[in-house]
Amino acid sequence: MGAVKSKRMPRAVREQQMLDAAVRTFGQRGYMAASMDEIAELAGVSKPLVYLYLNSKEDLFTACIRREAAALTEAVRAGVHPDLPADRQLWEGLRAFFTHTARNPDGWAVLHLQARTHGEPFAAEFTAMREEIAALVTQLILAAAREAHRDPDLPEREVAGLAEALVGAAESLAAWANATPGVTARQAAATLMNFAWAGLGDLMAGRPWSPPEEPERAQAG
Amino acid sequence: MGAVKSKRMPRAVREQQMLDAAVRTFGQRGYMAASMDEIAELAGVSKPLVYLYLNSKEDLFTACIRREAAALTEAVRAGVHPDLPADRQLWEGLRAFFTHTARNPDGWAVLHLQARTHGEPFAAEFTAMREEIAALVTQLILAAAREAHRDPDLPEREVAGLAEALVGAAESLAAWANATPGVTARQAAATLMNFAWAGLGDLMAGRPWSPPEEPERAQAG
Repeated sequence: MGAVKSKRMPRAVREQQMLDAAVRTFGQRGYMAASMDEIAELAGVSKPLVYLYLNSKEDLFTACIRREAAALTEAVRAGVHPDLPADRQLWEGLRAFFTHTARNPDGWAVLHLQARTHGEPFAAEFTAMREEIAALVTQLILAAAREAHRDPDLPEREVAGLAEALVGAAESLAAWANATPGVTARQAAATLMNFAWAGLGDLMAGRPWSPPEEPERAQAG
Repeated sequence: MGAVKSKRMPRAVREQQMLDAAVRTFGQRGYMAASMDEIAELAGVSKPLVYLYLNSKEDLFTACIRREAAALTEAVRAGVHPDLPADRQLWEGLRAFFTHTARNPDGWAVLHLQARTHGEPFAAEFTAMREEIAALVTQLILAAAREAHRDPDLPEREVAGLAEALVGAAESLAAWANATPGVTARQAAATLMNFAWAGLGDLMAGRPWSPPEEPERAQAG
């Protein structure tokens, strides 16, 4: 990247290079430890130029979260074709998700690890993305319920809980897959699909798991 | 707590009071924003006494993570009875988990949100707990496979992935349940049990979800 330092290039291009460098640095070092010097050097620009374009470390981090969140959401959306059956839609969505997080491990670390714990404006960006994806998953579960002609039987809160479980499982598996050599995006997607779909499938088919009868209520929540 | 300030009490008791105050403050404000002044005041002791007992903010935070991780792991272990059938063990384990996180929301916030993103020594404490729980879940899945007489069919990596998915789903649901008024620990456990068990059950019974045949390999991971 140093080679392009002296060339004139449009602001938008240079800004993306700064964001590339920032995502890599924040993802690998963490928000606190990342320095603006390091980011500027990696981007092949001067530190004042980073401040001129992106204002502050906080604004730069926000821009990173926003860009990575938009890219991930877009990848998942693009993977899902609404005219397919629900299970196929979920499979395509999971594959798109794990393919994207595998190809962008630093972006995923920024979103999954960094964004939600350094205070409110950052956490809010992450939460907005997570809610958008959870809403997409909720629609998928409702579509599956419609296909199984069972939508009046599945209460709204149950669907919200299932979507939350699926999103959490996907987040966890993405971090695990990125940290485990040899696990491909397709394998991670297949593992979660097996786990999730067979479970949702039984649920839709009216075969929930039944909790045992319990006389002891002492430690019940 | 101010009332006990002047009384003599054993160091161990006073230390637990400091940790109670610290968990509450770290959980509600976050690690960076929490001040030692606030923690000392909430514990009803002087700030020098907190430093005398627990050395530094870093050591205090580490002690909080360690205590909350041990309490959560212990609660889950105590909930699971190894002589029950696998599905019942999972149900009891999930109930114990969600009951504990519902009763200790600040402790859960310390573990789930704070511990893993403020640098290595803290993250390592969290990772150790997570691995212990994932190992417990892995044993449960293997027990379920044995019950279904299918253990040679389930590759080790698949089991590890399933355990990772289940742990991630539980983490996500615990945060959601704590943030959603009216969701009880039992409901959260039932939602995840339905999701997980029916899915695992199908898998154990040799009915995995089958991915469609795909000629396009372009965007496969």
